[in-house]
Amino acid sequence: MIGKAFKVSIFGESHGTCIGALIEGCPPGLRVDEELLRAELRRRRPGSALTSPRREEDEPVIMSGVFRGRSTGAPILIVIYNRDRDSSFYEAIKDTPRPSHADYVARVKYWGMNDYRGGGIFSGRLTAALVAAGAVAKELLGKHGIRVYSYVVKVGDVEAPVKPEDSPGFREAIDASPVKCPDPNASELMEGLVGRVSEEGDSVGGVVETVAFNVPVGLGFPPIDTLDGDIAKAVFAVPGVKGVEFGAGFMMAGMRGSEANDPLIIHDGKVVTETNNSGGINGGLSNGAPIVFRVAFRPTPTIRKPQRTVNLATMQPAVIEGWGRHDPCIAIRAAPAVEAVTALVLADHLLRWYSWEGMRSRILG
Amino acid sequence: MIGKAFKVSIFGESHGTCIGALIEGCPPGLRVDEELLRAELRRRRPGSALTSPRREEDEPVIMSGVFRGRSTGAPILIVIYNRDRDSSFYEAIKDTPRPSHADYVARVKYWGMNDYRGGGIFSGRLTAALVAAGAVAKELLGKHGIRVYSYVVKVGDVEAPVKPEDSPGFREAIDASPVKCPDPNASELMEGLVGRVSEEGDSVGGVVETVAFNVPVGLGFPPIDTLDGDIAKAVFAVPGVKGVEFGAGFMMAGMRGSEANDPLIIHDGKVVTETNNSGGINGGLSNGAPIVFRVAFRPTPTIRKPQRTVNLATMQPAVIEGWGRHDPCIAIRAAPAVEAVTALVLADHLLRWYSWEGMRSRILG
Amino acid sequence: MIGKAFKVSIFGESHGTCIGALIEGCPPGLRVDEELLRAELRRRRPGSALTSPRREEDEPVIMSGVFRGRSTGAPILIVIYNRDRDSSFYEAIKDTPRPSHADYVARVKYWGMNDYRGGGIFSGRLTAALVAAGAVAKELLGKHGIRVYSYVVKVGDVEAPVKPEDSPGFREAIDASPVKCPDPNASELMEGLVGRVSEEGDSVGGVVETVAFNVPVGLGFPPIDTLDGDIAKAVFAVPGVKGVEFGAGFMMAGMRGSEANDPLIIHDGKVVTETNNSGGINGGLSNGAPIVFRVAFRPTPTIRKPQRTVNLATMQPAVIEGWGRHDPCIAIRAAPAVEAVTALVLADHLLRWYSWEGMRSRILG
Amino acid sequence: MIGKAFKVSIFGESHGTCIGALIEGCPPGLRVDEELLRAELRRRRPGSALTSPRREEDEPVIMSGVFRGRSTGAPILIVIYNRDRDSSFYEAIKDTPRPSHADYVARVKYWGMNDYRGGGIFSGRLTAALVAAGAVAKELLGKHGIRVYSYVVKVGDVEAPVKPEDSPGFREAIDASPVKCPDPNASELMEGLVGRVSEEGDSVGGVVETVAFNVPVGLGFPPIDTLDGDIAKAVFAVPGVKGVEFGAGFMMAGMRGSEANDPLIIHDGKVVTETNNSGGINGGLSNGAPIVFRVAFRPTPTIRKPQRTVNLATMQPAVIEGWGRHDPCIAIRAAPAVEAVTALVLADHLLRWYSWEGMRSRILG
Repeated sequence: MIGKAFKVSIFGESHGTCIGALIEGCPPGLRVDEELLRAELRRRRPGSALTSPRREEDEPVIMSGVFRGRSTGAPILIVIYNRDRDSSFYEAIKDTPRPSHADYVARVKYWGMNDYRGGGIFSGRLTAALVAAGAVAKELLGKHGIRVYSYVVKVGDVEAPVKPEDSPGFREAIDASPVKCPDPNASELMEGLVGRVSEEGDSVGGVVETVAFNVPVGLGFPPIDTLDGDIAKAVFAVPGVKGVEFGAGFMMAGMRGSEANDPLIIHDGKVVTETNNSGGINGGLSNGAPIVFRVAFRPTPTIRKPQRTVNLATMQPAVIEGWGRHDPCIAIRAAPAVEAVTALVLADHLLRWYSWEGMRSRILG
Repeated sequence: MIGKAFKVSIFGESHGTCIGALIEGCPPGLRVDEELLRAELRRRRPGSALTSPRREEDEPVIMSGVFRGRSTGAPILIVIYNRDRDSSFYEAIKDTPRPSHADYVARVKYWGMNDYRGGGIFSGRLTAALVAAGAVAKELLGKHGIRVYSYVVKVGDVEAPVKPEDSPGFREAIDASPVKCPDPNASELMEGLVGRVSEEGDSVGGVVETVAFNVPVGLGFPPIDTLDGDIAKAVFAVPGVKGVEFGAGFMMAGMRGSEANDPLIIHDGKVVTETNNSGGINGGLSNGAPIVFRVAFRPTPTIRKPQRTVNLATMQPAVIEGWGRHDPCIAIRAAPAVEAVTALVLADHLLRWYSWEGMRSRILG
Repeated sequence: MIGKAFKVSIFGESHGTCIGALIEGCPPGLRVDEELLRAELRRRRPGSALTSPRREEDEPVIMSGVFRGRSTGAPILIVIYNRDRDSSFYEAIKDTPRPSHADYVARVKYWGMNDYRGGGIFSGRLTAALVAAGAVAKELLGKHGIRVYSYVVKVGDVEAPVKPEDSPGFREAIDASPVKCPDPNASELMEGLVGRVSEEGDSVGGVVETVAFNVPVGLGFPPIDTLDGDIAKAVFAVPGVKGVEFGAGFMMAGMRGSEANDPLIIHDGKVVTETNNSGGINGGLSNGAPIVFRVAFRPTPTIRKPQRTVNLATMQPAVIEGWGRHDPCIAIRAAPAVEAVTALVLADHLLRWYSWEGMRSRILG
Repeated sequence: MIGKAFKVSIFGESHGTCIGALIEGCPPGLRVDEELLRAELRRRRPGSALTSPRREEDEPVIMSGVFRGRSTGAPILIVIYNRDRDSSFYEAIKDTPRPSHADYVARVKYWGMNDYRGGGIFSGRLTAALVAAGAVAKELLGKHGIRVYSYVVKVGDVEAPVKPEDSPGFREAIDASPVKCPDPNASELMEGLVGRVSEEGDSVGGVVETVAFNVPVGLGFPPIDTLDGDIAKAVFAVPGVKGVEFGAGFMMAGMRGSEANDPLIIHDGKVVTETNNSGGINGGLSNGAPIVFRVAFRPTPTIRKPQRTVNLATMQPAVIEGWGRHDPCIAIRAAPAVEAVTALVLADHLLRWYSWEGMRSRILG
């Protein structure tokens, strides 16, 4: 479960009946309808040859918690049915786990009982559930003027120089790019790279950057329930994540304090930071600057090239190859999922922040 | 709180009465005594001129949950009293927050009520509480043959080529280094760098690597309670963390699947991975290979060099300088804390793993 | 959410699309299929004129977490679609809350946004979700020889002298009774009483007793996560509960220690209690004796007789009457729900108990 | 842990170093000092011959989370050291568990590792920790005008006709009674009864009633996190509880809906209930009326009269007698503990209520 006040659980398997999310603790009165969810889900659809050819229609169905188009305060169940499933291939190769996929660990963890078809619960398909839930969280955040954007800043060796903005144009630039990169030149280079990798039967990694604007100062409950910690945990619910860094992140390891520290200045009568190497978080608390972090995605483990593995039925070395339809770069379709989980964590922390702020005037008198 | 079965809360302030930890859910029968805790705490003590000259004796007192040197199954309270406190300096500068420290955000979050002396709850001193609790977790893990090592692999531009081993020698090499780096050459270079930085009145960042050996396959509860996610969240409880990456981490973003994937092979009759780019975790579950991850630490925000800030009382620009005793490189003393939180998360997941494994034979028949 | 290891959330509204439950943390390998759920759900169906004439078919659909008839270890989503809904009456009276129903408090809590039709989330209908989830919990408990029985021991002034037994005959006696009372004479008297009350347009309260056999010694995590406390909390998820007591319960308040204490004796080489005034729990831990507790249910708040209320639109006094189809005694259909939540709590505590027991031999050596 | 926003853990053993509580999530700015805690602790002190002669001084020490007499928002650790301990008796009888005490179950649960001296964690002494934490919760509730009173309404066969009032006089009447019963006549009768029972070497049960005034409408998060359910769970953290009932409670089982329902009326322009059979809660939500519930306490299991038990070392029948100093009626000293846990639950739910209410105007616009 993500969250303690705004709580989200996800369920479902790639080739089962459905996937979906259960949201508990969402306040009443928010606009929540299928069109809202659909608009978000569309952003993670395969937009081109770059992503898996599976034609997921991702038609969300709101099963509870909404009445006349508004959240009621009751648990919201969202279900997205699976279609276009062909599991025959998975039967053929169920004893030969894909290297670096969850096939092998899942078999051990679940005593051989797991639904291995399509990767089961480990499929990238479950990110649609996160995206749907995230749409509701964004409605809540929007009431506070908080907006979140995730976009691809690196694919393989192609890096994009992105300067995030809190504007409709920035949103459109992300959505217009088939690789979710708002920089048109980099987008084109990334698209070319992904195409070549795909032709080679290989896959490639990438980096997704996220920025959240207008987050109030003081979200987080240190010393342990830090805002950055909760974001970090949540992003690992997106398959393929291998790292997360805030602000200057790993580069900070090579910096001096005098260059890394963000001077405090007064701007429009408010205390702000001049730079944002901290990524908007100090001491586990939001500091008022945009929250900025990057998430590293591994290359899709499923590739067409031959790979060495073990046949678990015979316990003999084996080779697998020729896996079919998979995104060659999961970072691309994961971008909306990272945006969604960020929204989920911020919505949760915003509600929890109000648990104190709502009492403030009564306590301070 | 870290954990759901083995649960740890920490408390205390840098210049208050004490710091400490409360452990709930620890099984009975483990050796827990002050000497055990002291041995771990010693590892984070200032070993040289490289770290803060504050002479913390870190004398742990076990207040509950232990009877005749063994854990009883009841909550274990560990208290470490503070000594050698001089808060006068903090009074003088309490209105001029240190850039990139939690001073400013804490003042807003806590409505000006926080104990700002010595950084309050945001002080690196609280990591002693994590280390003490981690000592208990390591006792539990030791019963399962699981061992955890954290060490510094980078300070500023000095990187150490460390090949971790599950051996007493490796442990000793870490502990022998004043910068917690098991590579003697790199250790010396790091020591030199930290010394120069300190003389300049500046600070420098670093990277801590952690490896956990002998973790059974299948720890973790995806799709959301992933093992890597829980580790990632926990490390952010250590002040100064700006990033975390597993296995090949951010480098994976530049790799192809065919080079990043870890082939499965048979070794001694068991299925193992030939390489470990995954860092011992796939799909949020431990895969049997050593768990390897790196944590990026920012330079200590408190430096002696002049820095621009704002006087919050007058709301005028201000300059602060001359801060006294602080570790110039927090990564060094943070290494044992990262080791501790890793042990806490693994202990928790080990207990939770048994909640299923204990039923296995009854269910499968 | 009920539980920390075996975790259950419920959702849905009386007149919405569906109701249902999400189970997280269920181990793999258990038989879970629609027939299993249906068998349990049948036990709460209106069996006679005594309960609401609404024809709920309660056809459960397993949407995730099950593969080839076995639990997979992944989240299990169970949905029961609503049919036979007619909400027109609720529209007519939505501004005149029923006394002692949740109508008024729900309107305030949810800012007027709640789905009031059929009582929304406060409908007894949601107990079907608990019963469906309970069916899975009972499968797990069955692997440990633990069995749970709930039955009606009191309706209005009719009390039944029930001596619970762990036998198929006892189960059948409960199920055969239209009022869920295994004592045939009392059952007939209760049936008569409920019929008369129904004719009068009134309702009546009742008491449900529960017994759980074969629970191992030591379930519970005191001092706070007590087994009785967790059961007590869970039963309040069943609408209409106003009290819960274990063993001799409130009668204990009038007893002396010398009569209330349960002597320890040796039976078949094992330590057991001679009597069971404690209801199988001491100090928040199961003691090996059958767990016995009773739950008091209020009379159904919805009645046909005229009642004074307030018209919230006009803020004038009002009278409501003539409410249609409702069980005159909710205790009857609540019995299977109490049995279900008991199973949920025991399943959770059994798994948590194994988190320690699974480590026992490694720790004690 | 009690609570999700205002979170309390307790620790310690009867004959160990200390007992105490850790409070996490308490907002800043509340008056918290030793005198505040002491005032509450005094209310559970042995006031007369009626309660255990052990001279507990209950001197609370605030170890963290408070600065200059105000809560800081950081975790608050409260420690109460144990004194006047003589464990020799417990050594002599450690193999002969007291009937209906936790002695036997604790030995099994904790693999023989538990601190059995003085009952260990199962001692009524731990309620001092709850009372100390409750003092902080009451400060928070006081800022909202919420006040909680617990008092004894029954000891053995003596029942007191108490009509609770939200007034200083009512508070004084409770505190003035050596048996915590605000009715002077009943108090005297109870005192006499407890004295006689004590002379007989026996113990006696009792009932504690609690009332909370001024609780806003809508506290609680149904369908599962009900307010009554959370209170019910929390009271079981007080040793000796065997039952809890709200409003008319178990009497409701014998009532008709037409007499049990609380009519809604308009009073001073507000919607209120005319009667309060519901005990201030409907559908798991506070309804604005005073919250009223009763808790049944068993007779103290430890008595001087001879009792049959088993010698666990020899596995032979045994008789124990002559246990020394123990309250003959635990209900009396438990009353302040019930008051405290009620305050803890209400403080938690109040904060959680604000997590929605704080967003209300932004959402509804």
